[in-house]
Amino acid sequence: MRVLILGGDGYLGWPTAMAFAAKSHEVCLVDNYLRRRIAMETESEALIPTPNLNERARIFESATGIRLHVEIADCADYALLSRIVRDFDPEAIIHYAEQPSAPYSMIGFQEANLTLRNNLGVTFNIIWAVLEHAPQCHIIKLGTMGEYGTPNIDIEEGWIEIEHHGRKDKFLYPRQAGSLYHTTKVLDTDLLWFYVRTYRLRVTDLMQGPVYGLSTAQADLDERLLPNFHYDDIFGTVVNRFLVQTVAGIPLTVYGRGGQTRGYLNLNDTLQCVELAATHPSEPGQLRIFNQFTEQFTVNDLADTVKRAAHGLGIEVAVESIPNPRKELEEHYYNPRHSGLIELGLQPHYLTEKVLTDMLQRVLPYRDRIDRKRIMPRVRWAG
Amino acid sequence: MRVLILGGDGYLGWPTAMAFAAKSHEVCLVDNYLRRRIAMETESEALIPTPNLNERARIFESATGIRLHVEIADCADYALLSRIVRDFDPEAIIHYAEQPSAPYSMIGFQEANLTLRNNLGVTFNIIWAVLEHAPQCHIIKLGTMGEYGTPNIDIEEGWIEIEHHGRKDKFLYPRQAGSLYHTTKVLDTDLLWFYVRTYRLRVTDLMQGPVYGLSTAQADLDERLLPNFHYDDIFGTVVNRFLVQTVAGIPLTVYGRGGQTRGYLNLNDTLQCVELAATHPSEPGQLRIFNQFTEQFTVNDLADTVKRAAHGLGIEVAVESIPNPRKELEEHYYNPRHSGLIELGLQPHYLTEKVLTDMLQRVLPYRDRIDRKRIMPRVRWAG
Repeated sequence: MRVLILGGDGYLGWPTAMAFAAKSHEVCLVDNYLRRRIAMETESEALIPTPNLNERARIFESATGIRLHVEIADCADYALLSRIVRDFDPEAIIHYAEQPSAPYSMIGFQEANLTLRNNLGVTFNIIWAVLEHAPQCHIIKLGTMGEYGTPNIDIEEGWIEIEHHGRKDKFLYPRQAGSLYHTTKVLDTDLLWFYVRTYRLRVTDLMQGPVYGLSTAQADLDERLLPNFHYDDIFGTVVNRFLVQTVAGIPLTVYGRGGQTRGYLNLNDTLQCVELAATHPSEPGQLRIFNQFTEQFTVNDLADTVKRAAHGLGIEVAVESIPNPRKELEEHYYNPRHSGLIELGLQPHYLTEKVLTDMLQRVLPYRDRIDRKRIMPRVRWAG
Repeated sequence: MRVLILGGDGYLGWPTAMAFAAKSHEVCLVDNYLRRRIAMETESEALIPTPNLNERARIFESATGIRLHVEIADCADYALLSRIVRDFDPEAIIHYAEQPSAPYSMIGFQEANLTLRNNLGVTFNIIWAVLEHAPQCHIIKLGTMGEYGTPNIDIEEGWIEIEHHGRKDKFLYPRQAGSLYHTTKVLDTDLLWFYVRTYRLRVTDLMQGPVYGLSTAQADLDERLLPNFHYDDIFGTVVNRFLVQTVAGIPLTVYGRGGQTRGYLNLNDTLQCVELAATHPSEPGQLRIFNQFTEQFTVNDLADTVKRAAHGLGIEVAVESIPNPRKELEEHYYNPRHSGLIELGLQPHYLTEKVLTDMLQRVLPYRDRIDRKRIMPRVRWAG
């Protein structure tokens, strides 16, 4: 299959590209280094140095003999993206090409503006490049579980039947997100759904929870092939923050009460999910939505598990609540379905102490590179 | 009250400005003539010539002694809009500054791109200009009933309580619109709601149905103060098309089966609604949504009423079904609530034969200016 991966330099884009290539798919990656630029501007560079995308592709080729096609280009530029889609003629596009940081999107006007324009603009350009040059191509879009927020009712997989005054209809599940970044994903879904039903595009929207992990079959071939590991407040997830705090001997910082519940998944499960979506494409005119995570827990649960894993390595770490920089419920109902990908064949890997121990051992050699100033929240939702 | 009207050269913006000014509010109008430019480019100029905005303001001042402040500026330019908000310090902003044509938004990539970027970009800029310079200012945003589409359940005023598996929560009413233009208004609402709940903005979103009418207390002072009258397939509504077809001796063209039901209102009721919203502002942190129309009927009903009004003037007109250029249901359930504005004091004016007769008489003198080529659909949703 010809697979076009947009945002191919990212935490997910790069391992996805390697995984597809290793399964003999023809892979083209596109990236404009937006994340690296933002990381530099906000002093949020990744902990483990990663070569540039062309260099990583060369290292991958040396290790495997497999060639990746790399395009350094901005998907927000329609002429460029359209040319790439025309020439590569993909059967699947995997769309990771978005500004992915919630805190960054909340800094101020410029950052919010960039996030809105880039994310919605790229999605729009993909829609049109596909309409124009590859109308049968299956668009696999990374959404986020964050689109749903934390409603007081069960979260379905994208769609809900509503009964109201004795009549029924089916709708996109109502979404209200906790940051501008997450809101741009809500808008993406609405935009895709309009073009899907009007022009019979084939789209899968993967509502993904926070992903953790560094090891993949291909990344393990060479340290320089590891995905980006961010621990800062801009790009880092709570899992990475806790790992780095453990290694650096800093208490694990829980935002507020720590009852925030989310659905998480292992990087290797993301790779499985995206492959399952690609090999089982949606139908023309179908917007198929999956909730992409394998287990749910609270931030407090996570802190406890990290603490236990650290103890196993002889590291004692404290847990400390700090004022929540975000606006979010700190205790809430949370019951999202996530059976669609399991039905397609997903074999989940869970976040065990063992997995955390392996990650801690990955991070330990980089202990001296940890910059403590970038761990604590530098962005507050209140402005 | 200091009222800033964005899109002040439009069909609604101009009469709104005059109406507020006539009630002793201080009014500033902003427009970049986008609609006039698109009208020229698509050969869709209004039937009745209208002077430019500065000229109209001078004519209004001669007739009433009231000065309007006019800024010819693009609200999509944040520096300009932000400066205007800072200097004028509005208590209410009435946001009409959007590309308002559904067919235009469906022509192709360029037109869709302009619609998405302009509409969402202007809404975003307004949000930020208010946050930065006038956080207490009440934003009155023109949405559209078209955001809801034609669901098989009753349409509430913006919000719905959903009961699901025995639990309840309140959400924005699910929306799926019939054109990209209408979809940009769905996105606007989502974007506003994010910033309302995060930064406690005050917003009223008016989900308006198609508006008809030319006469207002101020427009009647001088023919040159009339609002724009578009009868073309790009900017014209079905009401205007039927009026012009009657006057030109062309059969009234019903798209498909003609069972399409919409909620309509008189231009004078729009003026009432916007004034009621402005004088009863929403609270900080509240996104208040009203469904803004006064009565609903099908396209077939409308054709019949126009036919009868024409007959009263001695004009016999036929009704003809043509293939529907849009993708929409031609027979459907439609039951939207619209009590909020009535409760605030709206006194509806209905679309009687008398009203249509008056409009026909307004249009008759311009019969020779009618260009038949621009009446029939030039844009098809199928592409």
